[in-house]
Formats: sequence, structure tokens, C-alpha cells
Amino acid sequence: MATTSSGHTIKAFDQDLDRLRALISEMGGLAEHAIRESMRCLVQRDLDGAAKIVEDDKKLDALEIETEKRAVQLIALRAPMAADLRDVVASMKISSVVERIGDYAKNIAKRVPLLEEVSNIEPLSLMPEMAKIATQMVHDVLNAFVERDAEAAVRVIERDKAVDDFYNSIFRTLLTYMMENPNNIGQSTHLLFIAKNVERVGDHATNIAEMVYYAATGDYYVDRPRGADPLKA
Amino acid sequence: MATTSSGHTIKAFDQDLDRLRALISEMGGLAEHAIRESMRCLVQRDLDGAAKIVEDDKKLDALEIETEKRAVQLIALRAPMAADLRDVVASMKISSVVERIGDYAKNIAKRVPLLEEVSNIEPLSLMPEMAKIATQMVHDVLNAFVERDAEAAVRVIERDKAVDDFYNSIFRTLLTYMMENPNNIGQSTHLLFIAKNVERVGDHATNIAEMVYYAATGDYYVDRPRGADPLKA
Repeated sequence: MATTSSGHTIKAFDQDLDRLRALISEMGGLAEHAIRESMRCLVQRDLDGAAKIVEDDKKLDALEIETEKRAVQLIALRAPMAADLRDVVASMKISSVVERIGDYAKNIAKRVPLLEEVSNIEPLSLMPEMAKIATQMVHDVLNAFVERDAEAAVRVIERDKAVDDFYNSIFRTLLTYMMENPNNIGQSTHLLFIAKNVERVGDHATNIAEMVYYAATGDYYVDRPRGADPLKA
Repeated sequence: MATTSSGHTIKAFDQDLDRLRALISEMGGLAEHAIRESMRCLVQRDLDGAAKIVEDDKKLDALEIETEKRAVQLIALRAPMAADLRDVVASMKISSVVERIGDYAKNIAKRVPLLEEVSNIEPLSLMPEMAKIATQMVHDVLNAFVERDAEAAVRVIERDKAVDDFYNSIFRTLLTYMMENPNNIGQSTHLLFIAKNVERVGDHATNIAEMVYYAATGDYYVDRPRGADPLKA
């Protein structure tokens, strides 16, 4: 076992684990970038940029496979126990959530060409702000994972309410647009799904935070504070 | 290692793995039931039934935690290798996807009380049919996992196109309803999200199929056939 074996074995395990963490940080950086880019492409109607987001998502898929392979190898070769095993399992789970965050960015990017003539409506200003909070949550929760900082993970969970509030506000505004003018319905529906995708990024940051909490403490995080429930999932 | 050790150890490992598989089958049964029930509650406007689905989802959450605990214990105690390790890792990943399928049922159930007066519109007939295909996919892919049957998993993937076609048809129909009468917009938006949730169940069955394929063969499934892309994620 890594924790009871020679210094050499411990060091090798730690190096392996550091490499796993580096992979997840790399994935996190790509996912955050993809979400921010999807917002920029949406607002600026950048179709080429949107196509690039869709293409670049393959990198995240490949990195998820890489993370899982390394995690499984690490378990097979080093037989980690207790906190070390929790860390490796958390790495695998977190990488799959980060990959899904990339999928949300891809989904948003795919809708950009479908939005033919979005005028300068409120939700288009609110959405990038909402995305900023959500991507910052992703950034901070992955840092919390690298630092094994359960408290920092809990602070991320608490910020999800702000994302939910943004979502609810955008949802209501878009319904109003649709009712005012039926010509807005097609566009607004796409914007509704885009807003939902960003809201889900916040949820996924929260899920990761719960995984970080468990990996760091060995206890399951309960008592998740709930804001106005925006009908998740 | 289970595969090279005494018959006793192999048997103990197999029993542990069987228990993991039984847990996942149990989760699958609950998730399928929850999706079917959510459709029944939607069509019959059964608010009590819908509340029960939300409450019952806690069982799935608990079973996911139980599955992960047992999988991690199994890895720590028995140090499985190769195909055995892939099976254990797949169990963990599949249980977390099944838990998310339960979340979709819960989400649909939460929307039932918000739909005050759904008249007998087309999508309400189409959606339960769509859900039948999606839940059958979940059922079949979990069987494929228990049987380690990669071919059966691939057949599940191929059926996702039918779910996507249903979704696209419902999407277009709902847009028409919204345009015809602005009073329908609130209701139709909820139905749109409900349809999206069912469509996502099919996606998740597909994700599980890819995991089953990998667990059974050691190769990653590529060349996923794509139908009319309903803007997933």
C-alpha cells in the first residue's frame, strides 16, 4: 500500500496522483474556456468560433478517457487505501463531470447558428454574467480538489443559489418575450435551453464540490442549501 | 488478485461483484418505474403520485452511495485486475448514470403540479410512447451489463435515434401550439423541458451502453451512429 510502503513507493504514488490532478486541471481549464467562449459566440454571433467549440470538445472526451485509464492503472498498480483511494475515485468521477460541462458548452455552441437575429434583449446581457459565476464555481471547485480543501468546496456549493436566481429571472423574461410576440418563440426557446445549460453548469460544480468534500473528509456532504428550485436535471 | 488467487478468493470476488450487479439492477428497476410513473402522473394529473416520485428518488441516491462504497471496498480488499477491475469501475459509473435517470423522473414529477390545465394535446400522447422506448433502452442496457453482452449494448445505442425522432416531433408540435395561442406558452415550455428530460434518458442509456461495451471488451466504443441531432446535453 502506498501509505505503509517504502518512501519510494509513496513518492511514485504521489507523482501518479499529481499527474491525475494535473489532467483534471487541464480539463477544467478547457471546460471553463469553452463555456466562456460559447457566451462570447452567442452574443457576437460568431459562427466560426461556435464551430471551433464543437470541434474542440473532442479534446475533453479524450482527456476523460485518459484520466480514467490512468486512475484504473494507478489502482491496479499501487493499490491505494483509504484517503488515497478516495482521491483516485474522485478523480475519475470529477473528470466525467467536467466532460459533461464541456458538453453543455458544445450544446450552446450548436445553438448559435440557429439564432438568426437575436436583438439586444435582456437575457443576452444576463446570460454571460450567469456563465461567469458558474465557470468561476467550476474553477474554484477544481482548485479545492487539488488543495483537498473541503471548506472551499462548501463555499462553492453556497454560490449555486446566485446561478439559480439568474436562471429564474431569465426564464421569466423569456416567457414574457414569447407572449409579447409569437415571432420570438423559436429564438426564445433556444435561449431558454441555453440558459438551462448554464444553470446546469452550476449544478455540476455543486456535484463536484460534494465529491471533493467526500474525498477530503470521508464523509458525505449533506444539508445542501437549496435556493429557489429551478427544476433541476 | 482475484483472477490468480485461490478458488475461494475468486468465489468471494464473484459474489461481491454479483452483489454490485444486483444493486445496479435494483437501481435500474426503480429508475424505470420512476420514469413510467412520471408519465402516468403527467397524463392523469396525479399530484400525489408525482409527490411520491420526488420522495422515492432518495432511495436511488442512497443506492448510488451504497454501490460506490461497495465498489471501493471491493477494489481495496480484492485488488481486482483487468476485466474484473473494469467491471467494478463500470458498476460505479453506471450507478451514477442510473441515479441521474432518476433525477429526470423527479424533475418531470416536479413539473406535474405546474401544468394546470393540459388539454388532450398530441405531445401528451407521444411522450409516454417516447418514454416507453427510453425506459426499455435502460432496461435492456442494464441486462446487457449483467450478461456482459457488448453486442446487446450496441443494439441499445442504435435505438436512441427513435427517441430523438420523437423528441424532434414533439418539439416542433409544441412550438406550433405556442405560436397559435400565447396562453399556451407557459404550459408548453414545461412540456418542452419534460420532453427534453425523456430524450436525455435515451442519451443516458446510450452512455451506459458505451460503458458496458468497454467493460465487456476493453475497447472504447466509437462510431456511434447519429440520427437527427436534437441538440443534446
